[in-house]
Amino acid sequence: MPQKNPRRNAFYAQSGGVTPVINASACGVIETARANRGAIGKVLAGRNGIIGALREELINTGRETPAAIRGLMHTPAGAFGSCRHKMKSLEENRAEYERLIEVFHAHDIGYFFYNGGGDSADTCLKVSQLGEALGYPIQAIHVPKTIDNDLPLTDNSPGFGSVAKYVAVSTREAAMDVASMCETSTKVFILEVMGRHAGWIAAAGGLAGEGPAEAPHVILFPEIAFDRERFLRKVDATVKKVGYCVIVASEGAQYADGTFLADAGTRDAFGHAQLGGVAPTLAHMVRSELGYKHHWAVADYLQRSARHIASQTDLDQAYAVGRAAVEFALAGHNAVMPAIVRGKGKRYRWSIGEAPLAKVANREKKMPRRYISRDGFGITAAAREYLTPLIQGEAYPPYADGLPRYPALKLELVPPRLKQRFDV
Amino acid sequence: MPQKNPRRNAFYAQSGGVTPVINASACGVIETARANRGAIGKVLAGRNGIIGALREELINTGRETPAAIRGLMHTPAGAFGSCRHKMKSLEENRAEYERLIEVFHAHDIGYFFYNGGGDSADTCLKVSQLGEALGYPIQAIHVPKTIDNDLPLTDNSPGFGSVAKYVAVSTREAAMDVASMCETSTKVFILEVMGRHAGWIAAAGGLAGEGPAEAPHVILFPEIAFDRERFLRKVDATVKKVGYCVIVASEGAQYADGTFLADAGTRDAFGHAQLGGVAPTLAHMVRSELGYKHHWAVADYLQRSARHIASQTDLDQAYAVGRAAVEFALAGHNAVMPAIVRGKGKRYRWSIGEAPLAKVANREKKMPRRYISRDGFGITAAAREYLTPLIQGEAYPPYADGLPRYPALKLELVPPRLKQRFDV
Repeated sequence: MPQKNPRRNAFYAQSGGVTPVINASACGVIETARANRGAIGKVLAGRNGIIGALREELINTGRETPAAIRGLMHTPAGAFGSCRHKMKSLEENRAEYERLIEVFHAHDIGYFFYNGGGDSADTCLKVSQLGEALGYPIQAIHVPKTIDNDLPLTDNSPGFGSVAKYVAVSTREAAMDVASMCETSTKVFILEVMGRHAGWIAAAGGLAGEGPAEAPHVILFPEIAFDRERFLRKVDATVKKVGYCVIVASEGAQYADGTFLADAGTRDAFGHAQLGGVAPTLAHMVRSELGYKHHWAVADYLQRSARHIASQTDLDQAYAVGRAAVEFALAGHNAVMPAIVRGKGKRYRWSIGEAPLAKVANREKKMPRRYISRDGFGITAAAREYLTPLIQGEAYPPYADGLPRYPALKLELVPPRLKQRFDV
Repeated sequence: MPQKNPRRNAFYAQSGGVTPVINASACGVIETARANRGAIGKVLAGRNGIIGALREELINTGRETPAAIRGLMHTPAGAFGSCRHKMKSLEENRAEYERLIEVFHAHDIGYFFYNGGGDSADTCLKVSQLGEALGYPIQAIHVPKTIDNDLPLTDNSPGFGSVAKYVAVSTREAAMDVASMCETSTKVFILEVMGRHAGWIAAAGGLAGEGPAEAPHVILFPEIAFDRERFLRKVDATVKKVGYCVIVASEGAQYADGTFLADAGTRDAFGHAQLGGVAPTLAHMVRSELGYKHHWAVADYLQRSARHIASQTDLDQAYAVGRAAVEFALAGHNAVMPAIVRGKGKRYRWSIGEAPLAKVANREKKMPRRYISRDGFGITAAAREYLTPLIQGEAYPPYADGLPRYPALKLELVPPRLKQRFDV
């Protein structure tokens, strides 16, 4: 086992679904590590996430120019690759943890920065315990990220604000389209958005209207049991009153018994159902029961990669949690996560706090009932107050030839030091 | 019948599917008319398009402030409402034309500006003949607009460039998302785009990659007969070679016998099939035949209302055709359409020309074969050369509170002068 070394290296990995601003967190980690060269060595990024550590595929971020690292601020998706690989418990899969230690030891890694959501917080927590459990000293800091906004102990999750902005803007635009043609054409428009078991992203669609009278007229939250008859009555009444009806439906919308409106039938590596197809399901319902002409859109990856319309607030926060993660590590902390703390007072202010990972892992923060209107189809003033600051500011990427321009990273792997390969 | 009056009023209407920049054409018409107050009276806009004329629901644009009219430049959808109402021939529906004349006569309308696509060009042509056929003097100018880019005699159609930019940007962003997670997650991503029988919008997705090796790896054009086996072989080979496969599919993709991949079974007022659902159809094919994990998105109205990422070139051209329409009218022309003319030479230049409506109406301009790669799954260098200038420049709308801010129009109707109502 290595001795405490004042300049041990850091491992950084992206985990789970990517966001429009996850690379801003990477930028925060790398730039802050570079600014503290006396205390921290190389930042080695896992190629395709944690499996890059298991396979000893470590990207030497030291080979990237400062401009390329800065360019991460406007680059969507996962610049180093991400994966959905859930580490089981130490008891269930000791071999994976021992392999991690082997690789970390070989590359003198003393800091583990894991950029992910709830499942990743759990992995990060397990890694933070390698010192006690297996005698390998490491500090593990979780860098929060999830478009679903379902992480506890942080006011919001980096990644969510940009998706919220995309969904709010897109809903407003599409609603205007429907409104301008509803007299003779489409009466019902359905936009399906992500969010899994939490309705935060769907709620963001609610920002498109200034109040409950404006589109979207119906939001379907996973938190509110779907009632087919009530839904159809609401849609019909809205078309009769307003002339058209705009619906924002969460992919996680479900019946009272927990059945998803559209379960694609497949499961991801974490065992979660792969959702999709709520919009066409609802469209079919509307047409067969009400007979209205409809259109539907499924934003899917478009929403979570839409860096072109990222929220400046979200971008700032994504960078800040990356920076804070390194600062916490340098201060000797372990098993923590930088959290976004909302200030008191009318004007939105935020700062970075610190949350213990043990309380973060594997807990989903759903929409509180008080954020959902009494009839279950809209958002309340309290929800608007919470959501609005998160979509403030337009952080446009630079363009060349009509398209966003992203930095070209070298993504050079450090030479492997272990003889043995490891199959993931 | 009224005598030639030096200050007769103008009628302006939006027709068919709206675009991110159709209101810029309205702005061009209204501002140019205002700049020529000595020669042209009020601009009366049809509420919900041509049916506003039939119903004598005429919006007095003179009541709008210059700032509100300028605000049309960044407002998506149809600010005055649009409709899909095809006027039949004079022989088939003389009553509608006589009603139009009644309304035009009552409001001293001598100019007819019709902002639409191919079907509307046909209506505009018929209106232009009212002088000869029914003795009512009117000048009818068609203002071109269609996201499908299928109008003949103009190098491109206003509205297309912005949708092309949206699709190219979104494809690039989503492709990066897929690339960064394909090692353990989604291998095949399908984006369904609009375009009807023409593959122009799908082709724009091809701009996302710098060359044929980059995503999107497969584009499905309506112009190329869909061959299930060839498609699946191409997808499989791409996943095996690149690690993932991004597909941009036109809603109009069809088999050799003309059957659409996904015909929703409903028809619009023009008798066209209402398309949708190509992406899930392809996704099902990929999963059942190849077994790859997939995701799919359907952009639907999001693409044609996405003013937040409009092309500056497109916006400029949309304004220019509106302005030119009024100038042509003032010069005494009839039955014409301002057309966009591409200059010779390497650097992209455009100017406004004039096309006779008789040659525009009811003709679809499809993608030429030389714009489609030999294997039918991509675009050629010639297509890139044609498309790239059209997406240049980012014409961002102003934002307030994180969302685009649009002008509040009064949309005041002029008092009706006719006793009789008319049912459309």
